[in-house]
Amino acid sequence: VRGDDARDKNLDVLRGVSMVVHEISEQECRELLARTHIARLACVSHNQPYVVPIHIDFHRDYLYGFSTQGLKIEWMRQNPLVCLEADDLSPPTHWVSVVVFGHYEELPRLPEYADLRRVAEGLFQKHAMWWEPAAAPLPGHERRLSVVYRIRIDRMTGRRASMGK
Amino acid sequence: VRGDDARDKNLDVLRGVSMVVHEISEQECRELLARTHIARLACVSHNQPYVVPIHIDFHRDYLYGFSTQGLKIEWMRQNPLVCLEADDLSPPTHWVSVVVFGHYEELPRLPEYADLRRVAEGLFQKHAMWWEPAAAPLPGHERRLSVVYRIRIDRMTGRRASMGK
Repeated sequence: VRGDDARDKNLDVLRGVSMVVHEISEQECRELLARTHIARLACVSHNQPYVVPIHIDFHRDYLYGFSTQGLKIEWMRQNPLVCLEADDLSPPTHWVSVVVFGHYEELPRLPEYADLRRVAEGLFQKHAMWWEPAAAPLPGHERRLSVVYRIRIDRMTGRRASMGK
Repeated sequence: VRGDDARDKNLDVLRGVSMVVHEISEQECRELLARTHIARLACVSHNQPYVVPIHIDFHRDYLYGFSTQGLKIEWMRQNPLVCLEADDLSPPTHWVSVVVFGHYEELPRLPEYADLRRVAEGLFQKHAMWWEPAAAPLPGHERRLSVVYRIRIDRMTGRRASMGK
């Protein structure tokens, strides 16, 4: 509610202005991905999209995530084409949003994925993941990480808006 | 950056706890949609999802939005199946997220849509839309609202998480 009040107050100031939108460079997209740990992940089954918030860790052209078993994992196993959106919409006078098109790659608990799982778990341990149910990757609790995956970034675009007139 | 610092500080407190997730009622989903004016909209073309942040106004089983022409409008005209996600992730100790499955319905500038467009524009005028490029719905600037649409809500589910142990 506090956020809404602040926003409405700011909006009064902004009435009568509009936003000028610019494409941002790939470097700026990467900077947003590096500082953002929440994204919305969209996947598809039979032409029906599904979108949920997830934790992400950006590392060398991949976004690492994990999940308990559920609809999105099931759908991404069937169709690895995904889209992620990460943004910073909070300031009332500008916003930045990055859209990533990519492929889902699961990192199962198998010897050939051991190195990649170590990379993923190293990233996850930098940030507690309070928004995932029973999934904090604590030592000795590895079983909680049901599914570890990464999204290969095929292409990304970003936009920044600032106040115009 | 300030947000990240605050979050990391809170996360230190939260390390070692996990979240308990509950389904929320349809009424609670509606309450979130009523107080939220930003959602992430996912649409699909040829099994490829696309997700972007949009402005929404919830009114009687529909979510009203508008857009300049672009990829999402093109895709939703071809395939009206969409998914929206709205949430409040900001508090570190709990979150709430609502996922809506629905259908895209365009409200073109035609006599038979005049009443619905008036409803939509009445909703939009309650909130300046600073995040849309050159789209503030000011009197005498109707041309800026390139495409007005609504999403018929077919089904929605919501989840709330709070700290467990």
